[in-house]
Amino acid sequence: MFNFDEARFLKIQAGAVHLAPRIDQEIGAAIAAGASNLFFLGTGGVAYLMEPAVQLLHRRSGFPVYKDYPAELVLTGSANLTAKSIVVMPSLSGTTKESVAMLAKLQEVGARIITLVGHADTPLGQGGTPALVNFAEDDTSSESFYIQSLLVALSVLKARGEIDNYDALVAELATAPAALVAAKKAFEPKAEEFARIIAGSDYHMFTGAGNMWPEALYYATCILEEMQWIRTRPVHASDFFHGPLELIEPGVSLILFRGEDACDPLAERVVQFARQYTDKLTVISTADYCPKSLSPELRALLSPAIMATLMERLSAHLEVMRDHPLVTRRYYKRVAY
Amino acid sequence: MFNFDEARFLKIQAGAVHLAPRIDQEIGAAIAAGASNLFFLGTGGVAYLMEPAVQLLHRRSGFPVYKDYPAELVLTGSANLTAKSIVVMPSLSGTTKESVAMLAKLQEVGARIITLVGHADTPLGQGGTPALVNFAEDDTSSESFYIQSLLVALSVLKARGEIDNYDALVAELATAPAALVAAKKAFEPKAEEFARIIAGSDYHMFTGAGNMWPEALYYATCILEEMQWIRTRPVHASDFFHGPLELIEPGVSLILFRGEDACDPLAERVVQFARQYTDKLTVISTADYCPKSLSPELRALLSPAIMATLMERLSAHLEVMRDHPLVTRRYYKRVAY
Repeated sequence: MFNFDEARFLKIQAGAVHLAPRIDQEIGAAIAAGASNLFFLGTGGVAYLMEPAVQLLHRRSGFPVYKDYPAELVLTGSANLTAKSIVVMPSLSGTTKESVAMLAKLQEVGARIITLVGHADTPLGQGGTPALVNFAEDDTSSESFYIQSLLVALSVLKARGEIDNYDALVAELATAPAALVAAKKAFEPKAEEFARIIAGSDYHMFTGAGNMWPEALYYATCILEEMQWIRTRPVHASDFFHGPLELIEPGVSLILFRGEDACDPLAERVVQFARQYTDKLTVISTADYCPKSLSPELRALLSPAIMATLMERLSAHLEVMRDHPLVTRRYYKRVAY
Repeated sequence: MFNFDEARFLKIQAGAVHLAPRIDQEIGAAIAAGASNLFFLGTGGVAYLMEPAVQLLHRRSGFPVYKDYPAELVLTGSANLTAKSIVVMPSLSGTTKESVAMLAKLQEVGARIITLVGHADTPLGQGGTPALVNFAEDDTSSESFYIQSLLVALSVLKARGEIDNYDALVAELATAPAALVAAKKAFEPKAEEFARIIAGSDYHMFTGAGNMWPEALYYATCILEEMQWIRTRPVHASDFFHGPLELIEPGVSLILFRGEDACDPLAERVVQFARQYTDKLTVISTADYCPKSLSPELRALLSPAIMATLMERLSAHLEVMRDHPLVTRRYYKRVAY
C-alpha cells in the first residue's frame, strides 16, 4: 500500500489490544472499591474518539458516565467529580494544555486518573494513576484510541455484570489489527478515487449516525480542516434533517460515513434524500471493506475504527494529490495561543 | 422595533415562566416517587436548546441525566430508559416525526413523559403525561424553551436538595420577559450592522463556550443554514483550537457568542487568537445588552436566551436585507423525507 508500514501499524494496534488486561484490572478494581462514576475527559478530536464508548455505556450500563470538556470543567467544577470518580483522560501527545490543567484539579480532587497516552515522559504520562502508554502517531492513533476506549466500556459492563461475552469479544479483538489491515487493502484500490472527490470541492458536508457520527466529526475536523485546510460542515445524520439539509443542491458535496451498528437506518435515510438533490453524494461504508471473518458484533463495535483506518488510506493519497502534507499547520505549534 | 410585536413576545415568554409551578410539581412528584433518572429527548435544534439545562444538571446534580437522539434511541433502546425514567420531550410543532416515533416506545416502556409543546392538539401535545403547552413560533420559541428547560433543571436541583435559592431564582424569572425586551431594545440600533456582517460572507464559523455554545450551534444551524441557506461551521470554543483554527485567515468570518457564565474565559481565548489572524472576527456579548437589573446568577443562567433574543432582532433585519424570508425552505414541508 502507498506510504504504509504494515508492521508498524500492526504493532501499534496490537499494543492497544494488549492493554485489555491492564484496563480491565484498573476498571474492575475501581468499581469493586466503590467508584461512583466515570468521566471521559478528552480535549479536541481525541474526545470524539471516546464517544462510541460513551454511547455504548449510556445505553447499556447503569454506571453513571459523563463526558465533558476539560477546558470547561476546570472552570466550572462538577458536583459529580469526586475522589470516587474514575477519570479516563486520553491524549496522544500527553501534553494537551487543557487536559494538563485539568489533571492538576483532578489530583486535588483525588479521582482515580487513567491516562491513555502515546508518550510516557509527558505530564499526562507521568500524571496517570496509572498511565497506559501505547505509542502511536496521527496516522495510527484513531484506531488505537477507539480500541482502548472500547476496552474501557467493556470492562465497565463486565464489572457491573452487564455483559455476557466480555471474554469472547476481547479474545476476538486480538484479530482486529489484522482485520484493519485487510480493510485497508480492500479499500486501497479506491482510495485515490475518493481522495479526488475530497480534492474536488472546497467544502464538504460530513454526516453519519450512531458510532459513525464521531468518526465523521473527527475526520472532517482533525484531518480535512486541521491538516488540509478544507472547509467542512460535520452534522449528525438526524440533525441533518433539521436545518442543514436546506444547503443541499446540485454541486454540494455530502460525504456519508456508514458503519454496521444499529443506527445505520439513519444513514440510509440520508441516502434516500440526498441522492435526489445533489450529484455529489459520496457514501463510504465499512461493510464494503471490513473482512466478514470479524463477528457482526465486533464489526458494529469497531465500525469507527474501521472507517478511521480506511480514511488514513484516503488521506495518504490526498496529501500527495493536493501537494499539502498532513503535517503542515498555520498555527498549531507555530504560534502561541 | 422593526417587525416586532412586544405584547405578543411578552405573553409568550411569560407563558414559559408561568409553567414553573407545573414543572416543579411534576418533577418534584416524580423524584419523590422514586424516579431514577431523567432523559432530555429533543430532535434537531430544540435539543440544542435543552443543552444548557443538561450542562447545569451534569455539573450540579447527582441525579442521573441523559440526553440522546430520539431517532437513535428508537433503534438502540437503552438499559436506563425504564418506567422509573422522567422524559422531557420538547417540540414546538408537537409533530416532530422522530420524536413521535419515540413517544410510542416511551409509552410501551411506561416512562413519565413530560412534553413541552407549542400546540396541544398534536401527537406530542396529546401524548404527554402531562403535556405542557406554551404557544410560540420560530421567532419566540428559543427563549421559551431555554426558560422551560432551566425550570426543569432548577426543579431537579430543588427536589434533590441541591439548590438553596430556587424560590428566589424563580421569583426573579418573572422579570425575565421584560429584561429580554430591554435587551432587544438595546441591541436594535446595532442589529442592522450585525446583519450586514452576516449578509457579507457566504460562510461563517460560529463559536461559543459553556451555555453559549448550544446557542451558537442553534443560530448557525436552525436560522442561518435552515432559514437563510448560508453555510456555517459551528464549533465549540475549546474544540476550535484543535483543528478548525487552521481555517482562519484574513477574510474568514468568525462569529463569537459571549455570555456571562463561568466558561467565558474560553471565549476570551478565541478573541485573543482570532483578532490577530482574521479581519472578520465579530463578537456579540449578551453583557453589552442585558439589563443589569437582572442578578448576575440569572444573567449567567439566561445568557443563551438573551443571545437568542438578540439574534431574533438580527434575523429580522437579515431576511429583509437579503430578500430571503425566514420562512422560505427548499425541502422542509415541501418534499417527503
